[in-house]
Amino acid sequence: MSAAPLSAKPLRIGLAGLGTVGIGVVKIVQQHADQIALRTGRAVQITAVSARDKSKNRDADLSAYAWEVDPIALAKRDDIDVFVEVMGGHEGAAKLATEAAIAAGKDVVSANKALLAHHGQALALAAEAAGRVIRFEAAVAGGIPVIKALTEGLAGNQIKRVMGVMNGSCNYILTRMQNEGLSYAEVFDAAQQLGYLEADPNLDVGGIDAGHKLSLLAAIAFGTQVSFDAVELEGIGAISIDDINLAADMGYRIKLLGVAQMTGRGLEQRMTPCLVPADSPLGQLQGGTNMVVLEGDSVGQIVLRGPGAGMGPTASAVMSDVLDIARGLRLPTFGQPASTLALPQAARSSTPAGYYLRMTLLDKPGALAKIATCLGEAGVSIDQMRQYDHEGDKATVLIVTHKATRADIDHATGRFAATGVMVGDPVALRIEEV
Amino acid sequence: MSAAPLSAKPLRIGLAGLGTVGIGVVKIVQQHADQIALRTGRAVQITAVSARDKSKNRDADLSAYAWEVDPIALAKRDDIDVFVEVMGGHEGAAKLATEAAIAAGKDVVSANKALLAHHGQALALAAEAAGRVIRFEAAVAGGIPVIKALTEGLAGNQIKRVMGVMNGSCNYILTRMQNEGLSYAEVFDAAQQLGYLEADPNLDVGGIDAGHKLSLLAAIAFGTQVSFDAVELEGIGAISIDDINLAADMGYRIKLLGVAQMTGRGLEQRMTPCLVPADSPLGQLQGGTNMVVLEGDSVGQIVLRGPGAGMGPTASAVMSDVLDIARGLRLPTFGQPASTLALPQAARSSTPAGYYLRMTLLDKPGALAKIATCLGEAGVSIDQMRQYDHEGDKATVLIVTHKATRADIDHATGRFAATGVMVGDPVALRIEEV
Repeated sequence: MSAAPLSAKPLRIGLAGLGTVGIGVVKIVQQHADQIALRTGRAVQITAVSARDKSKNRDADLSAYAWEVDPIALAKRDDIDVFVEVMGGHEGAAKLATEAAIAAGKDVVSANKALLAHHGQALALAAEAAGRVIRFEAAVAGGIPVIKALTEGLAGNQIKRVMGVMNGSCNYILTRMQNEGLSYAEVFDAAQQLGYLEADPNLDVGGIDAGHKLSLLAAIAFGTQVSFDAVELEGIGAISIDDINLAADMGYRIKLLGVAQMTGRGLEQRMTPCLVPADSPLGQLQGGTNMVVLEGDSVGQIVLRGPGAGMGPTASAVMSDVLDIARGLRLPTFGQPASTLALPQAARSSTPAGYYLRMTLLDKPGALAKIATCLGEAGVSIDQMRQYDHEGDKATVLIVTHKATRADIDHATGRFAATGVMVGDPVALRIEEV
Repeated sequence: MSAAPLSAKPLRIGLAGLGTVGIGVVKIVQQHADQIALRTGRAVQITAVSARDKSKNRDADLSAYAWEVDPIALAKRDDIDVFVEVMGGHEGAAKLATEAAIAAGKDVVSANKALLAHHGQALALAAEAAGRVIRFEAAVAGGIPVIKALTEGLAGNQIKRVMGVMNGSCNYILTRMQNEGLSYAEVFDAAQQLGYLEADPNLDVGGIDAGHKLSLLAAIAFGTQVSFDAVELEGIGAISIDDINLAADMGYRIKLLGVAQMTGRGLEQRMTPCLVPADSPLGQLQGGTNMVVLEGDSVGQIVLRGPGAGMGPTASAVMSDVLDIARGLRLPTFGQPASTLALPQAARSSTPAGYYLRMTLLDKPGALAKIATCLGEAGVSIDQMRQYDHEGDKATVLIVTHKATRADIDHATGRFAATGVMVGDPVALRIEEV
């Protein structure tokens, strides 16, 4: 009970990383000290911090905190209870410092999706063996309290499916293309200049960052060991303004959508561009905002929407974890003991869906028939077929299929080239029922 | 840590109420026993149940449970740890049984918004004095884990505003009116026949049920004692299809919207029909679905959407609380000790907003000028004024004001009658910025 008197021992934070998020954490701790004490029944304070460059100008007063250049030294300090890691990077210092913190008997709060997606199982086992917790609300969907909603709020449910738009940069690019009729390249360049993309932009537009997040949600949802390597990744680089417009004509929007579901064939995890209905919550999502959809057998569908990045939202999520620890709310990393998490069997897009196929064909007699034959022979039936305005001797053709597996679609499109009527490669996008 | 072995003591539930929600709880406990044990580290079982009529046919096997006709007797049983109250009613048996449970040293999980809205402070004080918890996720917005999001997920934030569509029946009526062009009376009757309304429909359409929920969220958000009596309540009975259509023409939807915010003048709590932008998440909400919007100083805006009622969703929320207790996650009822909750000062709609005013005027020269003068003299300036098609000697007039306080609007509309050009009463609806 947090009717505990304020004479309860303070919770002491060691904060590794003083970038945007780290400074956001400092601000909350400093500005809301009284409110936090009321809510947790104890003082929550920062004891020591770590970053490489102490001389850098940071928009916060850090003078009261001990300084460690080495985050591993910070992690081992006797005067901290919780190691807060907002440095980033899935190998090197972040990993070593997190391991050191656990070994030194500290609880860990991490915003590091890459680290957890790659090493979550080992870290969870180590933490649980040491009687410590690892919390990572900030690692998925920024300020949206989705880890808590899934792990605790829906704990009485068997989860059927988890979906989400969890990379704000990709959604920013796709919605700007849609709203302004710009090409992928144009908006990509603008996003890069605005600093919206990671130093390696493939982490964003290749779906890797969002894939990390999906793999963490899947582990909690299905009680399986986090298995990022099994996430099917497909970026947004092949999406053209034509695709966006054609999809819109049919009442759809294109989103980089993560989907995890347990099927009879195993755990399906996809982070791929999909068509979703324009009037669905996912379809209506604009700009850098994130959205996660959780589906449980009792609760039905819950939709969570909010800012997926930024100082305030990410720091809010970090502090949610810190305050849970201050309040004595302790759970295993993935919602059940790591030793009980199953090793999932990966199922590659085994759930059938309608597919959107966009291709350029030579404007020859019988061209459409040849494509239709490829589809038919692969067992894929056609729902709609539209031919768009010719350009010279070429025409854009759009096909919407009835439900098919990705394997059947790939089988069919693999035969397209041999027809001799294709120009370039077809684009195949799943139409997700949301 | 739930690395605890399954030899940990089972958590034993006493379930009071075997209506839809109670049976939903039974189903989850029976069907997900293994999964629950994995997630909590212990068995969660029902020991005893209570309902008046044992002979009634219920879609569940209750034979293993002891039966108490009297919920108070159930609450006192030595073989239960948690008293789950899904009976309803804010006085009488539900209140007495809840008090008895606390006195007997039981934790309480309640779906009873009315009970908590009226007696939450006293119950919280009693529970905390006894070292027990009261949880009520199911009391607000059905399956949406909003209490958890607010109390824990956003605990590092100063909450700026809480908004929500939290009565599915009202939203069903308003969206059916909009989508089918039906009158309020027509849809009200249909809803009543479909069993969508409480026995006393004013609990729904008068905003009382939703007001209960808002008052609970406000207590958590602002650290104040729950004060349902201070909620400004206005039902949807005065909303006509004309209002819905006129609002739609301007790009708005009408929702029964709850808003709680702390202002310089005190705590503002409103549950009133409001205009919200048609393309906002709140504006897009259709049918019986609920939505809660939480705004914090760090996190910005978080939107939660999901089913607000029904067997599965409500039982999911009840079980979330039960599993938290099984996992040892214990918090004060309203997120901080009840003794520290401030007695709020009520501020009646002190935050200025644009207002929608719809009225019928006699089609006389100078009629509009007279109305405009009333507004001007009350300090209310006009943003838009539209006159619609005459019907005999009457015309519908729509006025949208610039930002004004409700007091100024009431002051102005109070003078309308004396102009001699009004037919009936004007409708004044706030335009909420969302």
